[in-house]
Amino acid sequence: MSRSPGRKQENNKISRELFVLTYGALVAQLCKEYEKDEDVNTCLDRMGYGIGIRLIDDFLARSAVKKCRSYSETADMIAQVAFKMYLGVTPSVSCSSAAGNEFSLILDKNPLVDFVEELPAERASLCYCNLLCGVIRGALEMVHLAAEVTFLQDRLKGDAVTEIGITFLRKPEDRKHKR
Amino acid sequence: MSRSPGRKQENNKISRELFVLTYGALVAQLCKEYEKDEDVNTCLDRMGYGIGIRLIDDFLARSAVKKCRSYSETADMIAQVAFKMYLGVTPSVSCSSAAGNEFSLILDKNPLVDFVEELPAERASLCYCNLLCGVIRGALEMVHLAAEVTFLQDRLKGDAVTEIGITFLRKPEDRKHKR
Repeated sequence: MSRSPGRKQENNKISRELFVLTYGALVAQLCKEYEKDEDVNTCLDRMGYGIGIRLIDDFLARSAVKKCRSYSETADMIAQVAFKMYLGVTPSVSCSSAAGNEFSLILDKNPLVDFVEELPAERASLCYCNLLCGVIRGALEMVHLAAEVTFLQDRLKGDAVTEIGITFLRKPEDRKHKR
Repeated sequence: MSRSPGRKQENNKISRELFVLTYGALVAQLCKEYEKDEDVNTCLDRMGYGIGIRLIDDFLARSAVKKCRSYSETADMIAQVAFKMYLGVTPSVSCSSAAGNEFSLILDKNPLVDFVEELPAERASLCYCNLLCGVIRGALEMVHLAAEVTFLQDRLKGDAVTEIGITFLRKPEDRKHKR
């Protein structure tokens, strides 16, 4: 009584809904476990970091991008290639410091919050999508770029857009030269 | 200094890798939290159930399928439409009971375990993908089909294939008619 389907080409994509709902279940689980929003945020960031350091190999292999020669090029690459590839959206990028090491990724629409209307009142400090910050930080670290990655604006908190800030940190040897 | 990307059509798909790694982080978190594999399995099933009861609306809207007229048709629908839509793979289906209410979905390749080589020795009873069972159970319940859904074989445990068993439970009114 076995019915085998035709062997169609199986692609590399999955539906966003399943991912978004699974991510929501993960955040809900952490909220059960940790009372403080800060602890949930830290945990999501740490998990994301672990994902980022593994995802970078997949990214480099699939995107076949060349080495970026500036922070600006790196920020563009994250927005236009990585976000597109992994989340199916393309944030716009703006540079927010004269020193040229601070960038913002601005998302009009955040695919991770499709099923979330708003944060509950008792979870007002939750960075719901903090996993993404960890992923970016982990992936950058694997290509020898230390960075701080945080949410600067969040539509879930009533902001007009969702904005992820990336600050590339100078390497120790840069600092040494400065002295 | 703002650079806005062209507004390309944004699709509904995301990369499997990000999902698979995020799912792995979820399972790892539950393993930290619960010592017993059974408790992790139960928790994954419960989370999946919560996802399934929400995902069904999305499924019905996007697939535009008609009402199934038999358990067999329902099992085919899960394998050929739902799995394809949400996970990008199509299990084969076999009916495993004369009563016609037990089915197996057989996956040659399980996309959720792409980055998992094997279960650690101390986690030998873990049903790593148990979320899927919960999703199927929850979604079926929303279309008034009670079912038990469990892993019967798992490549992660050394079996040749991964097999999900679905047993449709008779409705109380069926039983009443029988008496």
